[in-house]
Amino acid sequence: MKPIDGRGVAAGIMAEVSATAAELRAAGTDPTLAIVVPTRDEATAWYVRSIERAAAKAGVTSRIEQLTDPSGDDVADLLGKLSADPSVHGIICQTPLPEGVRLDEVAAHIAPRKDVDGANPTSLGRLAAGLPTFAPATAAAVLELLHHEVGDLAGARTVVVGRSTVVGKPAALLLLNEHATVTVCHSRTAELAEVCAQADVLVVAVGRAHFIGAEHIKPGAVVIDVGTNPTADGGLAGDVDPAAAESRAGSCTPVPGGVGPVTTALLLRHTVAAARG
Amino acid sequence: MKPIDGRGVAAGIMAEVSATAAELRAAGTDPTLAIVVPTRDEATAWYVRSIERAAAKAGVTSRIEQLTDPSGDDVADLLGKLSADPSVHGIICQTPLPEGVRLDEVAAHIAPRKDVDGANPTSLGRLAAGLPTFAPATAAAVLELLHHEVGDLAGARTVVVGRSTVVGKPAALLLLNEHATVTVCHSRTAELAEVCAQADVLVVAVGRAHFIGAEHIKPGAVVIDVGTNPTADGGLAGDVDPAAAESRAGSCTPVPGGVGPVTTALLLRHTVAAARG
Repeated sequence: MKPIDGRGVAAGIMAEVSATAAELRAAGTDPTLAIVVPTRDEATAWYVRSIERAAAKAGVTSRIEQLTDPSGDDVADLLGKLSADPSVHGIICQTPLPEGVRLDEVAAHIAPRKDVDGANPTSLGRLAAGLPTFAPATAAAVLELLHHEVGDLAGARTVVVGRSTVVGKPAALLLLNEHATVTVCHSRTAELAEVCAQADVLVVAVGRAHFIGAEHIKPGAVVIDVGTNPTADGGLAGDVDPAAAESRAGSCTPVPGGVGPVTTALLLRHTVAAARG
Repeated sequence: MKPIDGRGVAAGIMAEVSATAAELRAAGTDPTLAIVVPTRDEATAWYVRSIERAAAKAGVTSRIEQLTDPSGDDVADLLGKLSADPSVHGIICQTPLPEGVRLDEVAAHIAPRKDVDGANPTSLGRLAAGLPTFAPATAAAVLELLHHEVGDLAGARTVVVGRSTVVGKPAALLLLNEHATVTVCHSRTAELAEVCAQADVLVVAVGRAHFIGAEHIKPGAVVIDVGTNPTADGGLAGDVDPAAAESRAGSCTPVPGGVGPVTTALLLRHTVAAARG
């Protein structure tokens, strides 16, 4: 099994983003990503810091908008204000949101041209319709890694496990736009292993550590593991059992070091693209 | 093989729509569907007349907005004007559109609450996100017929052939919301017959007369045929070979008399729902 080098792919994107950011600055535009943080959650803070570090490295300004105990309306109002602010080019909204508030409801207040994580339902609809738009960065990272690893996806028998609005569904729609044959599985799928084992390309985004075993993997398959499940020792575990991937897959993304760094790099690529207009 | 009675299902919906329309009229609201017709195409005119007849039967007012040689902007402006008109509750836009104009681009000017054929990309995104919205009527008709024929779709192995924005993709998204396991196939799919033959539920929307043969149908499968291909004698042929369906399927929608009448009935159901608010 060949590990897929997410950090290497991310480095390539970061170099390209840095060059674009430098051009923008030379032309008088300071590419800026606003990050709305509606929580004091520690894991969220850790993730936000990792975006800040990557942005600084690429020459993108990050602007943290920390909210304390906001209502859903507070979050929506802030997203609307940032959408109208010409000094902001990209906007993302972190989770968890206040109890009972849905991300896609508040994200409808992010202007589509600044929606660099594709969270506004309009962005998702434009993605489904094949219109130009920003895809959710994690789903875009799946495609970026597959282009790197497989190249042409036309006709590829692909299975996506997980149907979330932020990963599974947009990844499936992006794969369809690339002419793959796409099956979406989830918690209610009967005979999951049998369906997965037909996949030349297997994308897993279920959020359960080591959920995918050898019986789910067709020998030689390309496996993209989107899972980032916290472990007892403070590390991260993927959704795919590494021993199973080792014995069966042709190639597989590691966790950490696979989808994660590419996701962050793509958020920044989307931000400089939004700044360039 | 048992034919699936689309006309019977449509009649049930029409009875319900008539009752709601009568209630609305009694309360002083005249439920109104605006139909924008940007073409003199004969097939389109025929379809518009069939909607008018069904609307009249249900007590829904239809308002035909015929345009002659419009530009894309003319169509978009009219859709925006109707969106702002409080006497209009539902809006649909017919095709073909002027050369080079995309339906999903102009349909972005239909207010989502009046978008009874789910043509605005925002409606499609809300559908993908599982938020309340109007689905494209044809895709909704597929689900209506499957609920009638199969009942619970959770875990059902489902294959959708065709990935259009108006049928294939929204039908796949609706099936996912119903917990089916969904595969989307299309012109670039390798081994199409093999993939289709795994389906307990097969939905076909490719627009090629009698394209699906016995080799595509799992014995006993429920088959929904969305195709309406004009025949040399002025009739309609489905995408599924009727002889193949007869010999292999458990049940199948006829063409005509399957998906078509249910689609029209659902446009009207959506219109009275929009009028009720």
